[in-house]
Amino acid sequence: MDWMLFVIFLGACTAAGATGSMFPPDAWYRTLSKPTWTPPDWAFPVAWSYLYLALAFAGARVAPLDGAAMAMAFWALQIALNTLWTPVFFGLKRLRAALVIIVCLWLAVAGLLAALWPLDRLAFWLLSPYLIWVTIAGALNLSIVTRNPQSASA
Amino acid sequence: MDWMLFVIFLGACTAAGATGSMFPPDAWYRTLSKPTWTPPDWAFPVAWSYLYLALAFAGARVAPLDGAAMAMAFWALQIALNTLWTPVFFGLKRLRAALVIIVCLWLAVAGLLAALWPLDRLAFWLLSPYLIWVTIAGALNLSIVTRNPQSASA
Repeated sequence: MDWMLFVIFLGACTAAGATGSMFPPDAWYRTLSKPTWTPPDWAFPVAWSYLYLALAFAGARVAPLDGAAMAMAFWALQIALNTLWTPVFFGLKRLRAALVIIVCLWLAVAGLLAALWPLDRLAFWLLSPYLIWVTIAGALNLSIVTRNPQSASA
Repeated sequence: MDWMLFVIFLGACTAAGATGSMFPPDAWYRTLSKPTWTPPDWAFPVAWSYLYLALAFAGARVAPLDGAAMAMAFWALQIALNTLWTPVFFGLKRLRAALVIIVCLWLAVAGLLAALWPLDRLAFWLLSPYLIWVTIAGALNLSIVTRNPQSASA
């Protein structure tokens, strides 16, 4: 693996992850009605730390391979959507717009995994929890929209 | 050019560009002291529309090429930083944090151009205005920090 590539991809993940500390869960989030299966607050940074490391690792492994174009396009798409979601949800509190973003993110992650499968089986397996996590986060976003209609006007 | 790649890269640009309409210049921004050379408000969406199209076009042209790994890594880094800047500046009003982000963005764009030069001369020239524009935007961010010390505490 090329360490320079790893560092650059990790930089992109750091930009996305910075939204988590700059737009943290606040008093408003705690007052929202959430389903019983909502992961505890501590689970989010733990999950994202793993996923960002795995994303940087997979990016650095796959970028130099022949036929990596589609994987690289989906990698770029998912990191942009990932960076966008947190400011829209926690910053603007626009729950429905955040839901649209996370559905797009889910599709981008599915596209990334589909592109990784024939290229690099290790990268595929290391990132497959990403789709599970975005499924949970998306279901949570949807549940919060339906349980808090007064907060979900936009 | 592969149109599927173009659409995916344009999707990433759309996520970045969505921050411009979701976190627009507001009353606070208009009250800030700005230098005489500040571009007018209308110039920003015009410049970004060109740059996002050029980014998607360059990404789709370059992604399938041999030796595109570094260009792809910098492409991903710049779109994440690009998506992050607007919510931090206009959303959080954290002028100094935004300045750090835009300096990182400048470096990512310089890295992208350096990686494009030997790969695809057309992509290089189409994206060279990006570095000029981020230089202007970065200088404006710095100028706003120094002219508005009371607004620039973070």
